[in-house]
Amino acid sequence: MAVKTDIEIAREAKKKPIMEIGAKLGIPSDHLLPYGHDKAKVSQDFIKSLAGKPDGKLILVTAINPTPAGEGKTTTTVGLGDGLNRIGKKAVICIREASLGPNFGMKGGAAGGGYAQVVPMEEMNLHFTGDFHAITSAHNLLSAMIDNHIYWGNSLDIDERRIVWRRVMDMNDRALRDIVVSLGGVSNGFPRQTGFDITVASEVMAILCLSNDLDDLQKRLGDIVVAYTREKKPVYCRDIKADGAMTVLLKDAMQPNLVQTLENNPAFVHGGPFANIAHGCNSVIATKTALKLGEYVVTEAGFGADLGAEKFFDIKCRKAGLKPSAAVIVATVRAMKMNGGVAKADLGTENVDAVKKGCPNLGRHIANVKGFGVPVVVAINHFYSDTDAEIAAVKAYVAEQGAEAILCKHWAQGSAGIEDLAKKVVSLAESGSANFAPLYPDEMPLFQKVETIAKRIYHADEVIADKSIRDQLKGWEAAGYGHLPICMAKTQYSFTTDPNLRGAPTGHSVPVREVRLSAGAGFIVVICGEIMTMPGLPKVPSAEVIRLNDQGHVEGLF
Amino acid sequence: MAVKTDIEIAREAKKKPIMEIGAKLGIPSDHLLPYGHDKAKVSQDFIKSLAGKPDGKLILVTAINPTPAGEGKTTTTVGLGDGLNRIGKKAVICIREASLGPNFGMKGGAAGGGYAQVVPMEEMNLHFTGDFHAITSAHNLLSAMIDNHIYWGNSLDIDERRIVWRRVMDMNDRALRDIVVSLGGVSNGFPRQTGFDITVASEVMAILCLSNDLDDLQKRLGDIVVAYTREKKPVYCRDIKADGAMTVLLKDAMQPNLVQTLENNPAFVHGGPFANIAHGCNSVIATKTALKLGEYVVTEAGFGADLGAEKFFDIKCRKAGLKPSAAVIVATVRAMKMNGGVAKADLGTENVDAVKKGCPNLGRHIANVKGFGVPVVVAINHFYSDTDAEIAAVKAYVAEQGAEAILCKHWAQGSAGIEDLAKKVVSLAESGSANFAPLYPDEMPLFQKVETIAKRIYHADEVIADKSIRDQLKGWEAAGYGHLPICMAKTQYSFTTDPNLRGAPTGHSVPVREVRLSAGAGFIVVICGEIMTMPGLPKVPSAEVIRLNDQGHVEGLF
Repeated sequence: MAVKTDIEIAREAKKKPIMEIGAKLGIPSDHLLPYGHDKAKVSQDFIKSLAGKPDGKLILVTAINPTPAGEGKTTTTVGLGDGLNRIGKKAVICIREASLGPNFGMKGGAAGGGYAQVVPMEEMNLHFTGDFHAITSAHNLLSAMIDNHIYWGNSLDIDERRIVWRRVMDMNDRALRDIVVSLGGVSNGFPRQTGFDITVASEVMAILCLSNDLDDLQKRLGDIVVAYTREKKPVYCRDIKADGAMTVLLKDAMQPNLVQTLENNPAFVHGGPFANIAHGCNSVIATKTALKLGEYVVTEAGFGADLGAEKFFDIKCRKAGLKPSAAVIVATVRAMKMNGGVAKADLGTENVDAVKKGCPNLGRHIANVKGFGVPVVVAINHFYSDTDAEIAAVKAYVAEQGAEAILCKHWAQGSAGIEDLAKKVVSLAESGSANFAPLYPDEMPLFQKVETIAKRIYHADEVIADKSIRDQLKGWEAAGYGHLPICMAKTQYSFTTDPNLRGAPTGHSVPVREVRLSAGAGFIVVICGEIMTMPGLPKVPSAEVIRLNDQGHVEGLF
Repeated sequence: MAVKTDIEIAREAKKKPIMEIGAKLGIPSDHLLPYGHDKAKVSQDFIKSLAGKPDGKLILVTAINPTPAGEGKTTTTVGLGDGLNRIGKKAVICIREASLGPNFGMKGGAAGGGYAQVVPMEEMNLHFTGDFHAITSAHNLLSAMIDNHIYWGNSLDIDERRIVWRRVMDMNDRALRDIVVSLGGVSNGFPRQTGFDITVASEVMAILCLSNDLDDLQKRLGDIVVAYTREKKPVYCRDIKADGAMTVLLKDAMQPNLVQTLENNPAFVHGGPFANIAHGCNSVIATKTALKLGEYVVTEAGFGADLGAEKFFDIKCRKAGLKPSAAVIVATVRAMKMNGGVAKADLGTENVDAVKKGCPNLGRHIANVKGFGVPVVVAINHFYSDTDAEIAAVKAYVAEQGAEAILCKHWAQGSAGIEDLAKKVVSLAESGSANFAPLYPDEMPLFQKVETIAKRIYHADEVIADKSIRDQLKGWEAAGYGHLPICMAKTQYSFTTDPNLRGAPTGHSVPVREVRLSAGAGFIVVICGEIMTMPGLPKVPSAEVIRLNDQGHVEGLF
């Protein structure tokens, strides 16, 4: 059987005009700003007009720790949205935007896969509606204004060695990681060492995704700590007077982008913060808007549930006042086998024992998510190679954990293949059993918050941190940042900080290498291990084969 | 009398839906890709479908050398477009897009002024339809791929000291002019010195503006010389295999942007190359599309006629096969007075003698433009302070030169104030007197082309260039680039290379400091004097006061 590729399926999509998709949600066409005929932004005024309306139910799609076998989290998010619409619920999907730069390194990501995709795929993997370009501009305007301030006399007494605001570019460019700027003499400023991160790593990205509206956005931008004085006093973005102009640059980027699934159901694709040094969820404004417009909102969080769901709950839901009604944990038979010790090359062979051996990774995620007071269902994202015995083993294991695992065939069948999951999600959400609470209270000391995450979510024995790191956390508490939540940055491949430790390890330590204050976004980043904030291109970047074909279609990007 | 500002007038505009503006030109709505309700891109397919249609008449608006008094070239371009529509001609305006970065330094530019403007002004001064962001991405992808090629083994044997391709950003950021990249050890590459230019200075910008279609675009991108080997052999963009992916990034940016004037007439705003190191005109594809859709196309060229019109004729028209039917030279009484030696503070006082003394600057431009075989009319862009005697003096002078000067009040009155000019333009264009020819033939040696421009247009006695520069030009001739036109980069304020020399000087020398090959754009840049390709921010950048007001309008940008 010749299986169609994602892009082939996407190109066959019978897209409806985006105004029609908006009309389904009750958005008048003059409040939809079109970008082409298949993408639109929702106006600020329309969003404001929704204030008094009741909220729909929020469903989180999360996953086991990712493996090279693939788990299909976005595919399941899109499929579940279509499935809910199929069974008569007005459902809206909320996912993140793709970063442009990495697509020119490795083949780019679709938004979903198979018959559970969001379109237009090409545009979403290229400039889309320009949001990331706006973030790049706003970020770099602040950078330019910092150096310009120093150039013209440095009245704020910024210590040039303590500028913590770098520059960004939406490109994989290792040459820009570590640079010296302002060479060439007096008219170019004071030479200093700095660098570029990729745009998705910008604090402006995290801020845009956590802001409720443009006023909140400007306030948070103003709160960014950009540097310290020689007396180690913080210098804020608002001291540089960049917050107003940055808000102007971001005013359109703040508006959620409406697109559609292959089944013509609405999807907001908006924002895309890193899932390590940031919180890895789509924007608060998109989620909140969707909740006003739909009975159900299906959203996802980056990486596995240990990182993604924890941050979704402890950062996004806590700060935005969101109360999820249910969570779906995506797993695959293949990934269970890999967690059970099978190599990728051997995944095609039935191995029920390995499945059973790998299931505790899933089990821990189930328990963790339940710990937040959110009812859980497991979605087994079906692959052709899965055997009945393997699927039965997963189902039996999940039942033992007091949850249900449902086989889902949305990749191959679209919404028809995911009806059972949709029905289960509705029954969980309507049962009213959800009683969401974050993992730790705002007032807990910062280091204790880190320990709480490490022990309760990662099942570690201890957190190891130098005195300088503990002192830094205490310093931030003294400066009024003690109430902030923690944003953990560690490997996504394991509950531990060792990417090779699959399954559900215990007894490990979590070493903290560095802590960073994201005062505008409103969290403390705790870095455990190497985190790359500017990727490089591989030896043969996909850019070498990306081109327009004779039909004007993009080739090589997918 | 309280005079309204440009932005106040722009905000009162009764804009029509952009689909209606497109319909006036016969563009079906499914071939207009909307960006909001007031901007749209015209599809490639529609442009291709126009191939067999006859062309309208092309009118160039150019000007005297700019003075601090202002001449109003874009305002007159827009006003003339409205005026032609008013007298029953189907006219389309073609102008350049604004650069984002400089708007955050000094107050940004409107597109026109008074009652002769193109809207939406805010969007056009911010991200607009994202074209410049796409150019930035395409340019920097090539940069990243060059360093990546060296990182992974440098099989092309690129001499790291001879990489001529820098990076770009649409920002005024002097700290990035001169930098060292790839610091930080083995994994970040080989340290080398380089820098950023502002995006409008990118050769990709010039290429986009000179390309006929996407195939031509990719071919020209491939032709870019990015570096030289240790044996001084050129390394091309296509050797780096970046041309296909760059074309993909630019596929939407290549499509002309349709907007409207305050009087709801169509305007293409597309492309914006520098007028010094590049040719300073809007895109060929916009101009050619407009010529298929309108009876008249009114366009402008950067700076005064010595730089702007010369490059419009010798680069854009020559290469694109365009044949202008008439040219308008914009002058003001105030600028004539400044050319006649009056200081800016004294411009409010009548001074007929100074007007007369300054007129030879205008006279030389008239003669120069006529020299290209294009009939000329002078537009006197009216200011309130102009006296009848001063206006009469300009008219009399122009009549002596065998042309007519027409007083235009489009700034205050819109199209009603510029009917006379519109009628004159029609009579010139329909007289068939135009017989356009470029200044020099393709086959003339490069240095002789420079001398021809300097002597015939600037009225210089000689061109001074070191042997190394003459040798470089000969080297390019030997390498097959001898047929390229010259792109002069000199001060716009004078016919000479001294910005303080107003009027119509003779007997001067033109010293050439540097020559550069823009092999993709297809010209040789000849640099006379300091040319800044990355501006800095002033002491108090306008970004400090730019903000959204309570109505959601942008303040401080204009």
